Amino acid sequence: IAKEVAKLLEMKAQLGEDEGKHKFVLKTPKGTRDYGPKQMAIRERAFSAIISSFKRHGAEVIDTPVFELKETLTGKYGEDSKLIYDLKDQGGELLSLRYDLTVPFARYLAMNKITNIKRYHIAKVYRRDNPAMTRGRYREFYQCDFDIAGQFDPMIPDAECLKIVHEILSDLQLGDFVIKVNDRRILDGMFAVCGVPDSKFRTICSSVDKLDKVPWEEVRSEMVGEKGLSPEAADRIGEYVQLHGGLELIERLLQDPQLSQNKLAKEGLGDMKLLFEYLTLFGITGKISFDLSLARGLDYYTGVIFEAVLLQQENEHVEEAVSVGSVAGGGRYDGLVGMFDPKGRKVPCVGVSIGIERIFSILEQRLEASEEKIRTTETQVLVASAQKKLLEERLKLISELWDAGIKAEMLYKKNPKLLNQLQYCEDTGIPLVAIVGEQELKDGVVKLRIVATREEVNVRRESLVEEIRIRTSQC
Amino acid sequence: IAKEVAKLLEMKAQLGEDEGKHKFVLKTPKGTRDYGPKQMAIRERAFSAIISSFKRHGAEVIDTPVFELKETLTGKYGEDSKLIYDLKDQGGELLSLRYDLTVPFARYLAMNKITNIKRYHIAKVYRRDNPAMTRGRYREFYQCDFDIAGQFDPMIPDAECLKIVHEILSDLQLGDFVIKVNDRRILDGMFAVCGVPDSKFRTICSSVDKLDKVPWEEVRSEMVGEKGLSPEAADRIGEYVQLHGGLELIERLLQDPQLSQNKLAKEGLGDMKLLFEYLTLFGITGKISFDLSLARGLDYYTGVIFEAVLLQQENEHVEEAVSVGSVAGGGRYDGLVGMFDPKGRKVPCVGVSIGIERIFSILEQRLEASEEKIRTTETQVLVASAQKKLLEERLKLISELWDAGIKAEMLYKKNPKLLNQLQYCEDTGIPLVAIVGEQELKDGVVKLRIVATREEVNVRRESLVEEIRIRTSQC
Repeated sequence: IAKEVAKLLEMKAQLGEDEGKHKFVLKTPKGTRDYGPKQMAIRERAFSAIISSFKRHGAEVIDTPVFELKETLTGKYGEDSKLIYDLKDQGGELLSLRYDLTVPFARYLAMNKITNIKRYHIAKVYRRDNPAMTRGRYREFYQCDFDIAGQFDPMIPDAECLKIVHEILSDLQLGDFVIKVNDRRILDGMFAVCGVPDSKFRTICSSVDKLDKVPWEEVRSEMVGEKGLSPEAADRIGEYVQLHGGLELIERLLQDPQLSQNKLAKEGLGDMKLLFEYLTLFGITGKISFDLSLARGLDYYTGVIFEAVLLQQENEHVEEAVSVGSVAGGGRYDGLVGMFDPKGRKVPCVGVSIGIERIFSILEQRLEASEEKIRTTETQVLVASAQKKLLEERLKLISELWDAGIKAEMLYKKNPKLLNQLQYCEDTGIPLVAIVGEQELKDGVVKLRIVATREEVNVRRESLVEEIRIRTSQC
Repeated sequence: IAKEVAKLLEMKAQLGEDEGKHKFVLKTPKGTRDYGPKQMAIRERAFSAIISSFKRHGAEVIDTPVFELKETLTGKYGEDSKLIYDLKDQGGELLSLRYDLTVPFARYLAMNKITNIKRYHIAKVYRRDNPAMTRGRYREFYQCDFDIAGQFDPMIPDAECLKIVHEILSDLQLGDFVIKVNDRRILDGMFAVCGVPDSKFRTICSSVDKLDKVPWEEVRSEMVGEKGLSPEAADRIGEYVQLHGGLELIERLLQDPQLSQNKLAKEGLGDMKLLFEYLTLFGITGKISFDLSLARGLDYYTGVIFEAVLLQQENEHVEEAVSVGSVAGGGRYDGLVGMFDPKGRKVPCVGVSIGIERIFSILEQRLEASEEKIRTTETQVLVASAQKKLLEERLKLISELWDAGIKAEMLYKKNPKLLNQLQYCEDTGIPLVAIVGEQELKDGVVKLRIVATREEVNVRRESLVEEIRIRTSQC
């Protein structure tokens, strides 16, 4: 017994020690991550492609606070409202972290009485979801939104949103993709002709929304079992939601004996036809699929909806870590701004949201696989010295370079070894070294070393800035 | 009486109506604001100057989550901890919004065992302070931080931080400024020789910190009345904190019979002398003032501290709205990373934080005063038509332009009036109009109109992209 007690006491002591060491947990909150310099370099590349496209289409940019009054977000997200992060009541207003950028945009429009704007907004949003971080699903993540608000002729802005998704996914070279398109009015019309009661439209729509993740059988049993839909209605829905195609499918459905009798469906199909005509002019119908199974989770959509998914290359072995999935989505929400306007004045809107985290996961994996070395700084030159006691001279020279707009670094040591200085350039990819030495100082020159070739040239001090500019102009 | 009752009823009805209309308050949370396209354009200018300087000095960039575990922030901010925003406990971890970027940076270093990095981080931070928004004080605001972490020879990184502040404030042309510099060790040494008990160092330091806002008499009475300092000690402090100057003041204090006997003060003064030598090599001592009244509120500083303030031009009438104040601050915090490391391993750090909101307020006011028209998009050309039924042709042409990388817009109307299209260019500053018409289509040309001069030239369709590029290359 004494032996056992001693063992237990020892175990307890060990545990106590461990607890003592870890006074606190050193981590970021669940579902969040830091971005180090390498990740940031990749992220900046993706942002740059996205922002370029948004600007190419003439968008302005806005920004809104990370939190909103809690009531601003209430009643906008349906079943997903439970995922909203609330702030603690510390006296004053009740606040929540934004769940997307669309609701704050609608609040911004109503508050400022703006009836006409094309804007983008790139910012983090927050969802208390179950994170799947290896697949790029986080609780804090960026959305890159482009929206067109205003009363315009039908489907012209909608077509432009799809053009933008097409441009961005092509630019980023993420592999093959398809943009699925549908319309809430077609869905609602379909539900009506299938015999779904009006009161069940939204909840049945949520079930259909799951079709990209679970097979039809499961969705059907949810509709019939949990949601009390008749098996006949479910089966009729089942037939429609298998359909996907292009203009010819739209034409066929416009002739469909049931759908063609439904006002909403007819409107939706008519606009879908127009949309496909515009997309043909843009030359992008090859990647667009009119897909009756696309439903989109959010409550506020009123017309066209769309979602871009990456397709897995057949002959390519893709690891589980980066699974294929949705990278962009959006649609038309003509009623949202009116929910904020005291007089209910509506501002029609259509927009798209690019999900950067999943794109980032793919780019990051690809970069790792390619062994491409990515630079995390833009430094053009390291100011170095071969001898001791030249700190002052290095400080003087680097100051001159900074003032001339040259990106320059030096080691923060009084007397660094030349080898260490050259090694630093190798490690960080700095292409040039400006070496000051006693002889060079006397001669009024600086020795410029090209790291890649190890070539060294003496450059007159007054020409140094120009010489560095020329030699790094391709960077 | 009946008349009065009717009147009251009418008033009540009106009130009821108003209440009904405003089902919710349409606003952003207290102390926050939206940034519209114009404000964003100004903000981007300021960011661009700041990021340029950070990159010129070879900084990498990182990002961290907007919230941290509550315990990560605990015990870092002294009296200001009450200003931290906590998230509601919705199950799971207890979280707080970041209060600055320095503590998350230290957590990042400890967590990733990084002992050597030069990085910048531009992001929003949150403080439940009393907002004074007209003066650029918000509850949500950007900080632009540049920090150097690592074990280096004394004062070289510290001097670079001051050089960066000098560069940025000069670049932004905010008017005259001064960068006040002091050292926590000099302050502590001064407190010791003035007879402040060790236990009161921090709280007396907080009092000194108020000297930029309230006169000495008030600070003195807080020290003596609230904080129980002897009047003699307070008066001795009062003599020191009036002092400010340059190298000659440092030399004088190094000879000061009391201070020179104090180990901490001597160390601090020795390093301050070294710092001024380096700043002389950088040629920026003209804007630097060694100021014994500078204390800085935050607990974590251990060495050099500094703060940049804008000086009001004497002959310039400045409105109350933009009052003169601190636009950057920072210092050395050698102990903070060790607070996160399980084994207490220290990583010496020094850094600077640029406060963009106050700078932004000044730039915004200046822009309004100057009546300079600021563009909020970069659109190079509007695709227009003079005749009806040319929507398809406009869509085809704009798609060609987008695919060639040209920034192009069109009105989202089937048959817009030419006048409206030209007016849109005037309003938004688009320099060129590409006009498609039936004759032009037949001739294989596009009519390119230069908005500023009203000149019109026919350009062959295959040369259009090149022509637009040339004509907008200076933009």
